[in-house]
Amino acid sequence: MGKFVYSFNEGSRDMRSLLGGKGANLAEMTRIGLPVPFGFTVTTEACSRYYEKKQIIEDSIVDEIRDKMAELEHVTGKSFGDKENPLLVSVRSGSVFSMPGMMDTILNLGLNDETVEGLAALTGDERFARDSYRRFIQMFGDVVLDIPKKRFDEIFDRQKEAAGAAYDVDLTAGDLSVIIGGYKALVAEVSGRPFPQDPAQQLMEAIKAVFRSWNNERAILYRKLNNISDTLGTAVNVQAMVFGNMGDTSGTGVAFTRNPATGENVLYGEFLVNAQGEDVVAGIRTPRPIREMAETFPDVYKDFVRIADVLEKHYADMQDMEFTVERGRLYMLQTRAAKRTAAAAVKTAVDMVEEKLITKETAVERIDPSKIDQLLHPAFDEAEEAGAHILAEGLPASPGAAAGRICFTAADAEKLAEAGQKVILVRTETSPEDLAGMVAAEGILTARGGMTSHAAVVARGMGKCCVTGCAKVVIDEDAKTLTVDGKVLTEDDFISLNGSKGLVYEGRIPTVRAVFSGDFAAIMGWADDIRTLKVRANADNTRDAAQAVQFGAEGIGLCRTEHMFFEEERIPAIRQMIMAGSCEQRKAALDKLLPFQKSDFKAMYEVMEDKPMTIRLLDPPLHEFLPQTEEETRLLSERSGIPYEKLRQTAEELQEFNPMLGHRGCRLAVTYPEIARMQTRAIMEAAIEVAQEKGLEIVPEIMIPLIGMEKEMTYVKRIVVETAEACKKEYGVSMDYLIGTMIEVPRAALIADNIAKEAEFFSFGTNDLTQMTFGFSRDDTGKLIREYIDKGILEQDPFQTIDQEGVGALMKNAVRLGRSARSNLKLGICGEHGGDPASIDFCQQIGLHYISCSPYRVPIARIAAAQAAIRNREEQ
Amino acid sequence: MGKFVYSFNEGSRDMRSLLGGKGANLAEMTRIGLPVPFGFTVTTEACSRYYEKKQIIEDSIVDEIRDKMAELEHVTGKSFGDKENPLLVSVRSGSVFSMPGMMDTILNLGLNDETVEGLAALTGDERFARDSYRRFIQMFGDVVLDIPKKRFDEIFDRQKEAAGAAYDVDLTAGDLSVIIGGYKALVAEVSGRPFPQDPAQQLMEAIKAVFRSWNNERAILYRKLNNISDTLGTAVNVQAMVFGNMGDTSGTGVAFTRNPATGENVLYGEFLVNAQGEDVVAGIRTPRPIREMAETFPDVYKDFVRIADVLEKHYADMQDMEFTVERGRLYMLQTRAAKRTAAAAVKTAVDMVEEKLITKETAVERIDPSKIDQLLHPAFDEAEEAGAHILAEGLPASPGAAAGRICFTAADAEKLAEAGQKVILVRTETSPEDLAGMVAAEGILTARGGMTSHAAVVARGMGKCCVTGCAKVVIDEDAKTLTVDGKVLTEDDFISLNGSKGLVYEGRIPTVRAVFSGDFAAIMGWADDIRTLKVRANADNTRDAAQAVQFGAEGIGLCRTEHMFFEEERIPAIRQMIMAGSCEQRKAALDKLLPFQKSDFKAMYEVMEDKPMTIRLLDPPLHEFLPQTEEETRLLSERSGIPYEKLRQTAEELQEFNPMLGHRGCRLAVTYPEIARMQTRAIMEAAIEVAQEKGLEIVPEIMIPLIGMEKEMTYVKRIVVETAEACKKEYGVSMDYLIGTMIEVPRAALIADNIAKEAEFFSFGTNDLTQMTFGFSRDDTGKLIREYIDKGILEQDPFQTIDQEGVGALMKNAVRLGRSARSNLKLGICGEHGGDPASIDFCQQIGLHYISCSPYRVPIARIAAAQAAIRNREEQ
Repeated sequence: MGKFVYSFNEGSRDMRSLLGGKGANLAEMTRIGLPVPFGFTVTTEACSRYYEKKQIIEDSIVDEIRDKMAELEHVTGKSFGDKENPLLVSVRSGSVFSMPGMMDTILNLGLNDETVEGLAALTGDERFARDSYRRFIQMFGDVVLDIPKKRFDEIFDRQKEAAGAAYDVDLTAGDLSVIIGGYKALVAEVSGRPFPQDPAQQLMEAIKAVFRSWNNERAILYRKLNNISDTLGTAVNVQAMVFGNMGDTSGTGVAFTRNPATGENVLYGEFLVNAQGEDVVAGIRTPRPIREMAETFPDVYKDFVRIADVLEKHYADMQDMEFTVERGRLYMLQTRAAKRTAAAAVKTAVDMVEEKLITKETAVERIDPSKIDQLLHPAFDEAEEAGAHILAEGLPASPGAAAGRICFTAADAEKLAEAGQKVILVRTETSPEDLAGMVAAEGILTARGGMTSHAAVVARGMGKCCVTGCAKVVIDEDAKTLTVDGKVLTEDDFISLNGSKGLVYEGRIPTVRAVFSGDFAAIMGWADDIRTLKVRANADNTRDAAQAVQFGAEGIGLCRTEHMFFEEERIPAIRQMIMAGSCEQRKAALDKLLPFQKSDFKAMYEVMEDKPMTIRLLDPPLHEFLPQTEEETRLLSERSGIPYEKLRQTAEELQEFNPMLGHRGCRLAVTYPEIARMQTRAIMEAAIEVAQEKGLEIVPEIMIPLIGMEKEMTYVKRIVVETAEACKKEYGVSMDYLIGTMIEVPRAALIADNIAKEAEFFSFGTNDLTQMTFGFSRDDTGKLIREYIDKGILEQDPFQTIDQEGVGALMKNAVRLGRSARSNLKLGICGEHGGDPASIDFCQQIGLHYISCSPYRVPIARIAAAQAAIRNREEQ
Repeated sequence: MGKFVYSFNEGSRDMRSLLGGKGANLAEMTRIGLPVPFGFTVTTEACSRYYEKKQIIEDSIVDEIRDKMAELEHVTGKSFGDKENPLLVSVRSGSVFSMPGMMDTILNLGLNDETVEGLAALTGDERFARDSYRRFIQMFGDVVLDIPKKRFDEIFDRQKEAAGAAYDVDLTAGDLSVIIGGYKALVAEVSGRPFPQDPAQQLMEAIKAVFRSWNNERAILYRKLNNISDTLGTAVNVQAMVFGNMGDTSGTGVAFTRNPATGENVLYGEFLVNAQGEDVVAGIRTPRPIREMAETFPDVYKDFVRIADVLEKHYADMQDMEFTVERGRLYMLQTRAAKRTAAAAVKTAVDMVEEKLITKETAVERIDPSKIDQLLHPAFDEAEEAGAHILAEGLPASPGAAAGRICFTAADAEKLAEAGQKVILVRTETSPEDLAGMVAAEGILTARGGMTSHAAVVARGMGKCCVTGCAKVVIDEDAKTLTVDGKVLTEDDFISLNGSKGLVYEGRIPTVRAVFSGDFAAIMGWADDIRTLKVRANADNTRDAAQAVQFGAEGIGLCRTEHMFFEEERIPAIRQMIMAGSCEQRKAALDKLLPFQKSDFKAMYEVMEDKPMTIRLLDPPLHEFLPQTEEETRLLSERSGIPYEKLRQTAEELQEFNPMLGHRGCRLAVTYPEIARMQTRAIMEAAIEVAQEKGLEIVPEIMIPLIGMEKEMTYVKRIVVETAEACKKEYGVSMDYLIGTMIEVPRAALIADNIAKEAEFFSFGTNDLTQMTFGFSRDDTGKLIREYIDKGILEQDPFQTIDQEGVGALMKNAVRLGRSARSNLKLGICGEHGGDPASIDFCQQIGLHYISCSPYRVPIARIAAAQAAIRNREEQ
């Protein structure tokens, strides 16, 4: 039998997986002598056992908890349930990864009809004691007994009205007693039993509620969005209460050691006098900037600044801290690595390297590659923004720019977003219930709440633009209106948010891409020094190619040639080629295409210069080039003079039941070698001419798609070599070139040694390889894959992250076999997985030489590749 | 440098791959002292070198040939090119496997304007000498110089006319001299150089022509049809001439030690007096039965009977022999294992076991499984045949029955057959050029030729019905008419052939399946004793199941349940299920299907009793059950009352781009667990009830299709187990059952250990596994695969014979991993490969427990499995 409960002085930050993040940090702060109210942590393993034992806490664990409560009584000198000197505790969840979807906190646990009197006597503040009790009943009712908050609010508001109280503070101790009576009656009515008076029972029920909250819908959704395993479980922290609401020498606050939105190195946060922590987070009252605490509580402030500095240095990372001041005494309630915007992450990392707090490697490791996107995400077009009408100003809670239609509920936001619309979620304040709507929205606007409100924290975590505390705005969620300065906007209206400035505009402002900051360039440089994987981009035109180079791509891993054919002036020739009745007619049509292809490739080489560029021969089935509808066919017939009937018939002949598995890829080159010849000629002539004109050394890489058999490779390679050699002879030049293949058919991976005899490089086409390995048509199984993820059959979408177990096994096999046949075989990936950090890590593990992804993912790939290099180096 | 030429006394039958079949057997006959004209063999390796050296025979090999010619001169006492006593030789091809498509023979080589005079003087027969010379020029012209036979025939016929000769024998030596002059002029004109007078040059050109004939179109086609590798090459046999046409004490013939059509143990063959061997084979004159030789050449006949007996015992197999009698002396020119019908193969094998010539194992090995089909192939319905009008009677050249439209050319036969028509190829006589047409035809009728004519030999080899020597029939190939007794039939008419009786009928006679003979049953019994693989059948209905059991199936390896749904009374319910808007509606529709499915399964269990039966849960995408055309949809709407628009919309929603890789297999069970529940219930209730009613012990095998992930298996298995256990509880019985999966998605094979944790059996679905491993949609790539085979990219159709390199690698992997997780995992195959002998051999090698194929392939599978057991036992 293990140990399932740890006192704060028994743990440390290294015990995160057992104690959860919050518990481990409370223990760590205790360990280094910071003022933390004493308490203990029930471990994540206890949570797992709770689920194993069909939601019962075993007796032995209950006993452990009792022992720790006794210790806590001893340390605090108070007694749980004692009428004179009652011990009150908070109960908080704390999983390994911070999870806003979960039950967070029950405060003031231990209060009952008797101890409330003791608390009143002890503090000499009856009103405070009764307010604490009614808050406790409300939280317990909400969290443990699942009684809607609204029902409590109704009772509260009714009494406020009855008492003629304008504000909560106007309520007397007597009013609060009435409210407590109402709350207790409500609890009895809804739960079918009286509000539990036994503190020990209260405690056990609260712990179980925390365990249960691990599997509530919001928590599950959050884990799914953040790829957190469902099996980890949560820990529970039980801690002696301290009160920020014991009058004007008390208070509570939240602070960051640096600015989490910008990374600026100044203490950043908010506090409220005479309030409990929930008041800050829930955004009910708009708090004051932390700096002002220097005036309100000068000694406490000095102390806090010192502690913040200790913590940041100790953790060597930006901290997000919660604290409470009880009658002039500072208590630390939480510290953790601060969630930050990508921009803040970059600045902080670079600053900390300069401050010698961390190494460059650690700096690179600190960047979440999936958030780099934020830095590349749109900002408003400056001129357009300057001309736009500002509706209101709020707090710049999460930077970026967003425009969209107004939605007043999370459900509406989800629905419209699913229908393809861009929406802004507008709420008085957000709560965890709004999570799905926040995911769906482009940006979030709240009327209340500060920089650390729920909306602000979650939006920053998501890298989503957010404006909070926009007090001028009045939101009527029932009527679905937003009123500002008398102007009424509805669901039919659009607004734009500038999250970096906290501005709300009327209408839709167009966006532009952001540019890199100097700090970002520094991090990228360090990443480039660390990584061993080369990063290339997939690009079919000069615009994308130039963008890719600007983002740091070292070459092109996949240049698809078919996209070039779709352009308006070329498609008639390709159609003529398809309609050709003989090899000669086909050649004539291809002769028309040759100059187009050649000039395409020349333009590409002019951009890429001597950087490597892998050009793939024609891949899609020919019917993709024919008109798809009857009307288009008629139009083509009129324009081209080809009889309608012949067009229709050809289209029918080319029709396939399963085009994915049909006549495409190298199969086209086998059937119509003329096409491969024309393309090879275009590539070679372009490369030779650009090399001559610019004095460059270009080594063309010609990629044959969809190879599955050794002899297929031999067959098509011969065509390519013959043509390439002929071109060289005609120009009288010598030029090296590489011929390789995509590994995208499972059979290719199985016989990779034989293919490598002919192929000089492999590029894993993991899109198709995933389709065929799973038997999943990407066009048809999107919904099914979501269903599989929902039902826990798949952990993640295999089209986003490489399925290491299945597809990955084929890749490993292909690498091993391929290298056995050709030790200098060049290995890369050009599927969409090439831009996915987890997949990049796998590519590093199996020893690929490069990854290739879309231009906008190049920076992500550079960071992810560096992190993969560090991770896999460490693991060796 | 190796040895490339072997004298007949240097070889033996074991040197087949080097000397070719003919050469090895000539050597063997020489070795055991039979009368064989002396000679030598240029090896197959010489042929390979010829192709390696760009079609040049190396000097060193030329030298070897010269040395062997010198030896031959010494042995025969004659001299090559000698005016007085010229050595004449035959040059014949001889590959490892007998190949009718190849160049066969040049006779009388060594004759020229001078030696012809020597031959005349030596034989005292000027006419014979000149006839031999003109035959030689004609054969050389045809085979070496590619001059159409027709051109020679024209010259010959012109002279016949000029001389007023009715028959060839009426031509005088002088006439033949004129013809020789004409032939030589023709050769000079077409080839651009005079007919070669140098015998050494003649010989080298003839040898090269044999080498070249290895790669002529017909030879390539034949190899493709018979799966013979293109790289083997052919040997060339050079042998001293003996003459069967030296007057009435000479002759030539072909004989089998037993009847190759029926297997009857009597000497069987034909001979012609005063003729060369080609005359028998080509069918120009209709020869006499071999028995009659006892009267014509009594001593020679006695000798021949003895030699035939020696050869059959020596080879322990039925022999096919060629011989020539020169002036009363018997010479053996060839012996080889006789091609025989499947019926003859079976009878001979059984007889030889009784005669203690061979063991039962050898008997089983002697049966070509691919020909067993013949024994199961149609015969005429007896009553119908009795009532049909006999047009003509010919020789029963190859047994069986066939009916079809008349085709007069091979090209017509190919064209019509490709268009799906059944045709009978009707020719005066066939030649190797007709091969493709014979393949395409249902049966072959020739007006001339005997039992050993080209048509007869090839048809028997193919197991194709054939009637030859039907003298009454007059065929005008130009006019495309067949005239018999004044009745004229054209291409528009149909005829029927009884190849077992040699009868030609007017019109189309319906056919029925043949029944097994006692000998066949005996062989099958021996095969069953030998084999270790169980043989099951794929059957979806009681008719197929009963047929399978009759053919010896030991169970059902694949019972598809969807076919049951397509029946007319069920499809409305399945459509109702598809159209269901809710889970409840779907259940209601499924409740209607349950009794149907249950009664289907009961009927199946009643046939199969306690034999194992693997039932697969619903597999195809649901759209397959919806009407495919607009008209059918309208009809369904009218009948079902479901609005047309809703039907159309549902059909559209279910439409898939790549249905092969879409929403089907176990994915249906994940999305609609109700379907899997209904099917499981139907299976269990049926099994329980039949077990109770018949007192049987039934162990249902429930197969979940298309599994690719471990959790998919867990998910669907839970549904099946819950339902099965509920059924058992309801009936109050205990019953074992197995739950397994198809291995048909590549990923399943890659993670087979994880799947085997849940699955109790694997059945390889090699059809889909091949589709996904290659990325070949079977519906779309038929033409492509033929092109790949033509271009030598694929050796065989991977949908017919398992691709051992790719698909086979996955299978091996799955077997290894599966067994590592579950040592008693049951392993089978239910793809169409289960009936293919080469694939069965592979299944034996990788250790499967059973194969399952279509009912009519069960006997093939039983033999093939026995052969696989022997082969792999020997290899160990």
